[in-house]
Amino acid sequence: MSALDALISHISRLPGIGKKSATRIAYYLLEHDREIATRLAESIATLHDRVELCTECGRYTEQQPCDVCSDPSRDHRTICVVERAQDAEVIEQSGEFSGLYHVLGGVLSPIDGIGPGELRVSELFDRIGRLGVTEVILATNPSVEGDTTALYLVKMLQERGISCSRLALGLPVGGDLEYADRLTLARSLRGRTRY
Amino acid sequence: MSALDALISHISRLPGIGKKSATRIAYYLLEHDREIATRLAESIATLHDRVELCTECGRYTEQQPCDVCSDPSRDHRTICVVERAQDAEVIEQSGEFSGLYHVLGGVLSPIDGIGPGELRVSELFDRIGRLGVTEVILATNPSVEGDTTALYLVKMLQERGISCSRLALGLPVGGDLEYADRLTLARSLRGRTRY
Repeated sequence: MSALDALISHISRLPGIGKKSATRIAYYLLEHDREIATRLAESIATLHDRVELCTECGRYTEQQPCDVCSDPSRDHRTICVVERAQDAEVIEQSGEFSGLYHVLGGVLSPIDGIGPGELRVSELFDRIGRLGVTEVILATNPSVEGDTTALYLVKMLQERGISCSRLALGLPVGGDLEYADRLTLARSLRGRTRY
Repeated sequence: MSALDALISHISRLPGIGKKSATRIAYYLLEHDREIATRLAESIATLHDRVELCTECGRYTEQQPCDVCSDPSRDHRTICVVERAQDAEVIEQSGEFSGLYHVLGGVLSPIDGIGPGELRVSELFDRIGRLGVTEVILATNPSVEGDTTALYLVKMLQERGISCSRLALGLPVGGDLEYADRLTLARSLRGRTRY
């Protein structure tokens, strides 16, 4: 296989990139300064050496523990539970949350053989005990698996007297009623906020 | 800047990739086997060392001259002129052309200061003389610049008694009249083929 075909094949395995986009990117790298390709390659090559999982919360970090876990100004008694590391970044960017995170590393899925043992559930309860956590926000995705996983955790959390909540479901900001799906609209009505 | 942010910024500079896609790709590389990132990085890093321009036709190649120029079974008296190296690959994939290629490296564009001297025009006429080329297919893009460039070359080629042609304009195969734009439909009518 030629160097160009090999690169196109590597790129087209990335998420959201088909053969055409991969070809375009490969030619872009060829046509432009060698420096662009060199920097990109280096950045990809050193990624796994520089970034690791925070031993506390499971976010990606370059220091142990991560900047959130080691920040004394954050509320260490509130934990937001997310499925994947990148979900924590999305919530962080909203600027609405000042507690700590806990990455589960997935959701319960009996079909795929993923039970509580495959997720970072015992680590969550270990942290809750250690930090004296009083509130847990369940921010798993609003999917069947996400809901099931949240419900599973809520039961165990409530037994320990910990306050639990789930992200609100409803219309997206700037959205249009016309384009909302039936289920979202139903949830948005059920969860309406009073003036 | 963190390693992850740096990578996301490098990736989002690639064509057709925005911030969201870049983030998704960066996390994909982090979440998956280190091997995937290593192979991709290597492939990008060695690209410029392995691939160069064919000194004859200007296509990207790993040998001099390229596989098309060095293939004796191809018609060395017919040359297909294209704007960019990747255009030659697209025509090659159609399986309809058995001659040689010539990459111009762009199109005439006085506004951008690109005249015949900036393109591989003298190289084209050098090859035409050397190979005894009798037919030239002008496969520049059906744009104003592409048309102008083709017309410029046609004049010079016809003066030398060389047969010239241009790619046909018309409806795409499998296309729908309803979705064809007015200009394409007009050209498709004007260039209708008789039974």
